[in-house]
Amino acid sequence: MLTGFHVAVIGGDARQIEIIRRLNGWDATVYIAGFNQLNESFTEAIDLDFESDQVKKLDAIILPIPGMDEEGNVDGIFSNRLISISEDWLKKTPEHCLIFTGISNNYLNELTKRVNRSLIPLMDRDDVAIFNSIPTVEGTLMLVIQHTDFTIHGSKVIVLGLGRVGMGLARTFDHLGAKVSVGVRSSKSAARVYEMGLTPIDMTNIQDFDLECDILLNTIPHLVVDASLIKQLPSHALILDLASKPGGTDFSYADKRGIKAILAPGLPGIVAPKTAGQIIADVVYRLLSKNIRKEIDHDS
Amino acid sequence: MLTGFHVAVIGGDARQIEIIRRLNGWDATVYIAGFNQLNESFTEAIDLDFESDQVKKLDAIILPIPGMDEEGNVDGIFSNRLISISEDWLKKTPEHCLIFTGISNNYLNELTKRVNRSLIPLMDRDDVAIFNSIPTVEGTLMLVIQHTDFTIHGSKVIVLGLGRVGMGLARTFDHLGAKVSVGVRSSKSAARVYEMGLTPIDMTNIQDFDLECDILLNTIPHLVVDASLIKQLPSHALILDLASKPGGTDFSYADKRGIKAILAPGLPGIVAPKTAGQIIADVVYRLLSKNIRKEIDHDS
Amino acid sequence: MLTGFHVAVIGGDARQIEIIRRLNGWDATVYIAGFNQLNESFTEAIDLDFESDQVKKLDAIILPIPGMDEEGNVDGIFSNRLISISEDWLKKTPEHCLIFTGISNNYLNELTKRVNRSLIPLMDRDDVAIFNSIPTVEGTLMLVIQHTDFTIHGSKVIVLGLGRVGMGLARTFDHLGAKVSVGVRSSKSAARVYEMGLTPIDMTNIQDFDLECDILLNTIPHLVVDASLIKQLPSHALILDLASKPGGTDFSYADKRGIKAILAPGLPGIVAPKTAGQIIADVVYRLLSKNIRKEIDHDS
Amino acid sequence: MLTGFHVAVIGGDARQIEIIRRLNGWDATVYIAGFNQLNESFTEAIDLDFESDQVKKLDAIILPIPGMDEEGNVDGIFSNRLISISEDWLKKTPEHCLIFTGISNNYLNELTKRVNRSLIPLMDRDDVAIFNSIPTVEGTLMLVIQHTDFTIHGSKVIVLGLGRVGMGLARTFDHLGAKVSVGVRSSKSAARVYEMGLTPIDMTNIQDFDLECDILLNTIPHLVVDASLIKQLPSHALILDLASKPGGTDFSYADKRGIKAILAPGLPGIVAPKTAGQIIADVVYRLLSKNIRKEIDHDS
Ligand SMILES: NC(=O)c1ccc[n+]([C@@H]2O[C@H](COP(=O)([O-])OP(=O)(O)OC[C@H]3O[C@@H](n4cnc5c(N)ncnc54)[C@H](OP(=O)(O)O)[C@@H]3O)[C@@H](O)[C@H]2O)c1
Ligand SMILES: NC(=O)c1ccc[n+]([C@@H]2O[C@H](COP(=O)([O-])OP(=O)(O)OC[C@H]3O[C@@H](n4cnc5c(N)ncnc54)[C@H](OP(=O)(O)O)[C@@H]3O)[C@@H](O)[C@H]2O)c1
Ligand SMILES: NC(=O)c1ccc[n+]([C@@H]2O[C@H](COP(=O)([O-])OP(=O)(O)OC[C@H]3O[C@@H](n4cnc5c(N)ncnc54)[C@H](OP(=O)(O)O)[C@@H]3O)[C@@H](O)[C@H]2O)c1
Ligand SMILES: NC(=O)c1ccc[n+]([C@@H]2O[C@H](COP(=O)([O-])OP(=O)(O)OC[C@H]3O[C@@H](n4cnc5c(N)ncnc54)[C@H](OP(=O)(O)O)[C@@H]3O)[C@@H](O)[C@H]2O)c1
Repeated sequence: MLTGFHVAVIGGDARQIEIIRRLNGWDATVYIAGFNQLNESFTEAIDLDFESDQVKKLDAIILPIPGMDEEGNVDGIFSNRLISISEDWLKKTPEHCLIFTGISNNYLNELTKRVNRSLIPLMDRDDVAIFNSIPTVEGTLMLVIQHTDFTIHGSKVIVLGLGRVGMGLARTFDHLGAKVSVGVRSSKSAARVYEMGLTPIDMTNIQDFDLECDILLNTIPHLVVDASLIKQLPSHALILDLASKPGGTDFSYADKRGIKAILAPGLPGIVAPKTAGQIIADVVYRLLSKNIRKEIDHDS
Repeated sequence: MLTGFHVAVIGGDARQIEIIRRLNGWDATVYIAGFNQLNESFTEAIDLDFESDQVKKLDAIILPIPGMDEEGNVDGIFSNRLISISEDWLKKTPEHCLIFTGISNNYLNELTKRVNRSLIPLMDRDDVAIFNSIPTVEGTLMLVIQHTDFTIHGSKVIVLGLGRVGMGLARTFDHLGAKVSVGVRSSKSAARVYEMGLTPIDMTNIQDFDLECDILLNTIPHLVVDASLIKQLPSHALILDLASKPGGTDFSYADKRGIKAILAPGLPGIVAPKTAGQIIADVVYRLLSKNIRKEIDHDS
Repeated sequence: MLTGFHVAVIGGDARQIEIIRRLNGWDATVYIAGFNQLNESFTEAIDLDFESDQVKKLDAIILPIPGMDEEGNVDGIFSNRLISISEDWLKKTPEHCLIFTGISNNYLNELTKRVNRSLIPLMDRDDVAIFNSIPTVEGTLMLVIQHTDFTIHGSKVIVLGLGRVGMGLARTFDHLGAKVSVGVRSSKSAARVYEMGLTPIDMTNIQDFDLECDILLNTIPHLVVDASLIKQLPSHALILDLASKPGGTDFSYADKRGIKAILAPGLPGIVAPKTAGQIIADVVYRLLSKNIRKEIDHDS
Repeated sequence: MLTGFHVAVIGGDARQIEIIRRLNGWDATVYIAGFNQLNESFTEAIDLDFESDQVKKLDAIILPIPGMDEEGNVDGIFSNRLISISEDWLKKTPEHCLIFTGISNNYLNELTKRVNRSLIPLMDRDDVAIFNSIPTVEGTLMLVIQHTDFTIHGSKVIVLGLGRVGMGLARTFDHLGAKVSVGVRSSKSAARVYEMGLTPIDMTNIQDFDLECDILLNTIPHLVVDASLIKQLPSHALILDLASKPGGTDFSYADKRGIKAILAPGLPGIVAPKTAGQIIADVVYRLLSKNIRKEIDHDS
């Protein structure tokens, strides 16, 4: 339980709704900003008033997954007002106040350093990345089924990268009956691919491999799906690029060859916002209850 | 190879295109009707002329999956003309000519009996139904991912029926990390469910079971998802009914309770027409080459 | 619960011990014969006295898995005495008394017909056969690992038969990373094998197939692993024959070719007697409580 | 191919036989010592003569998996003679000569440092450890099936550690139908366990968890299966400890509680020496061909 904890949720999308619900369920006092156009209303959440003394009680601030832009503004799909967070306001939070964001940038890093508050970029955490790989894989399944006229079962699939997303992708497409190869660069990953019953492709030696396939799933955030690779694909192949923008595919070359190539960022928020919100809420819960001790009797 | 075989493909959808392609690939002589509005043109297929003598050479006629309506008409999405097949025309086919359809009806049964030709309703075949279960399962995956805001992984799924579709559904949702229960009526099926590591629900005794779940997938072509079952579902649950029309769900009751319920027929043709066409082509190939001997030298 | 039920367990092996334990747990009155040399003693079981009136109360008699020999004798590994069951004694049981056996023979069939009691050969039941396939598969795993110097992972395995045992074998060896082919005779089974992501071998056409493999697992109770098949195996191959005696292998030919071939009957009783006993106890429970109504108040 | 390479295989067990076979297959010149009592003879291998000039040509020396004892002696199960390797002899190898061992010790580390040759302790390599996890898992399966009277399917299994062995164990026991929990210490591993559809146990907080289970598999090389953990196990439970000697179990306490506990080292060499030899041969091949360039024309 988070009885006695005060948390502000500022901006965001459908994921934040689940976060707010969970925080409420754990009995935290929740302040919200950026949800004024939401149909549903949160009876138990308090509107955050930036002018009030609420800020002095905050144990945590939860920013949207994309964090803050370079002007200190925060985006919220459920609001038409711009929300901006000032250095002065942040300084008024208690010293122990944790700032959660999905990803960070220089501006946010500098700002939190200046006000001397802990910033927690959630997407950098291994646990969050692994939990998030679950909706990412399911979103990939959906897109692949939508964008092909053949079944995954029986098709030849290449997954590039055996990281946190690649591991789940490879196993799942295998389970669905695809013939899965995985492009890796270390002998350790190659061994794991073999142990999983799949076929490793050594990406340091990629010219030696047959890269013909029906479905190519990229998770490597570098230009690896380049012209020389695309050339080997049959015309009916589908390229789905999951790597963070701008992806790892030469999209214009794919287009020239008539090969469908799709950049698909942000799948967890799209296909499973509730689960994605839950993942974040759970980590927030764990970090709050580990880092901040509440004397419940007096505080709440 | 089907060298020397003459096959007419009459009406249908994207699946037929794959069938025509395959028949061409096996060197059969292919006649087509109902594809005049298709952008793509088949250089190697001959337009079927119902007035000509082509009919006398036909070893097989392939009707669309839904077969023929009660007036003897055949539907084709790539044509705006009505195609009707007359008893007289059919009589002119060689005696050994096989008539393939997806499903049949009284009209087609009677017609083929009168002209004394073998009718093969493909969807009645166990092998076709099992092959078709593959795209059906993938279509189900796609719809479930689209219509929920949580992941399949970690959710509670009930599959009703452990037939040809249910078997694949149960195994696949298990592999994706769902907690799967399967509703069955025989002790044999219950044992198989247990052996697969899943939880059997005895449908002859359904009132004893907790049917709460996040996702309910029905494959039983009888009204089994009735009010008493729907009552047990939480409001966020999704019902996906795969059973042949009208499905096995009390849709109006689900609607009244605010539970999303979707009837999803014809998934193979929707999500994987190429694979679905291939499945049919392969069976046609097998039956033709088994039943009709060609003396290739003279005939071709 | 089986309160008020009287059950005699006569002869058998370690499986019976679990059956007795379970019956006790369900509060049945249990009579035992053939366990006098067991170290452990059953404080709650009553020694069956064939001369007494106990027989008149029996709702069920549980014979060993192999049933009875042609002289009416029953075998028990925990006893050095011969136990014989006479027609006269059986006649004294209540009319509703059920006779459970694993497998039956002419003698037992005739005997129970003459005394007009229901005989239930448990191993003929689909549910029991499927439950029993679980320890059978695990026993097969154990033997294969013991008798090869290479891993199952990465090896080529052929399973003959996709029945109740073959289904579990095929799936399990696939999960362990073997390349699995399955020999079947129907197009339905071939489709299922394909749907499972494995390779079907058409046994009606076996000469067309490459049967080279590292491990051959037979479940077909006919001579299918004959000289022509054995000839195709490399010298390091292992044949494990699970089919009921005498198996389906030409063992002397295998021996001549220097190929290790093992007949492995009765695996559930060997590798998992507790589970195997539980499977039987559960079915006995289900049949007793379904078929025989007890008025507990008066009877117990 | 290893044409032109000269490799000495000194001592060892059945794994070495496979190594020698493979090296021969790759056309290397192979010298052997410690195989004089082997029934089978290697027609293509040359007896290593420590007095001759053979040493000057050696590109690699392959020691047994346990390496060398503190007196510089090497063990071989196919020989009754002691083989000792002297510093002087080693010095005569070409400078590029690679010394392969399974595990190393101070003596061997010092010796190779003094003679300035590269030592490669194969078992320290991630790839080798992952490949070796495959036969380790299969050996574990065999032992568990042998030492229990119930099936893995349906039983509760706890795996301690999600390292290279634990990962394969957890997945495999899950596939066999066990209910698998995995003890881990990082949030990253806990997330992976959840993503695999299994239940994480936080070992930093182990007192909060129910550790009751039927089968406990330890891979953590520290005393983690201590009295407090063993106390929670039912009497029929089996502890199998795979961690390197002396394992991570309080064996005497388990014994006192009447719980069967088995230390099971060296499984790959026991259950699959051929595969285990192959794993080593493949890495040797890769390292030799990467590190040492042969001018085949002149050298061979
Ligand atoms: N589309 C979405 O909805 C979505 C969701 C989640 C994540 N993502 C994105 O997907 C990408 C992968 O995420 P992740 O969590 O799986 O990351 P990760 O765990 O870091 O995995 C990245 C993988 O790429 C490999 N790699 C990196 N550079 C390489 C190179 N030059 N050549 C070959 N392999 C290379 C790494 O190999 P090593 O193991 O050898 O280092 C690693 O296996 C990221 O860009 C992430 O932002 C997208
Ligand atoms: N939506 C699509 O795209 C799509 C694709 C393919 C098929 N389908 C349809 O899906 C349905 C299932 O197809 P299938 O091939 O799996 O058929 P199937 O093999 O005949 O399976 C039907 C299952 O329903 C069970 N069942 C029938 N009546 C029952 C009752 N009164 N109570 C409990 N269980 C009952 C059967 O149990 P027993 O085993 O005990 O008989 C069997 O397991 C059909 O209606 C088919 O037309 C739809
Ligand atoms: N060793 C043990 O511990 C153990 C344990 C359990 C069972 N068993 C024995 O294992 C055998 C299989 O048991 P089960 O329960 O799996 O039986 P099952 O379900 O009847 O399966 C037998 C399989 O054999 C196939 N078959 C039969 N005759 C054939 C033929 N002439 N050519 C090709 N295929 C043929 C059947 O194919 P169709 O499907 O086309 O009919 C079926 O798939 C039995 O003999 C049983 O007694 C042994
Ligand atoms: N019996 C055999 O035949 C056989 C075969 C192969 C290997 N082995 C042995 O098996 C053991 C495991 O091998 P491996 O390759 O899997 O090693 P590994 O990859 O290093 O895995 C060891 C695991 O133990 C965990 N761990 C270490 N100390 C811990 C602690 N104090 N509390 C909780 N967890 C702890 C590690 O967790 P982190 O990930 O958090 O560090 C890691 O997951 C080794 O001792 C190895 O020698 C035996």
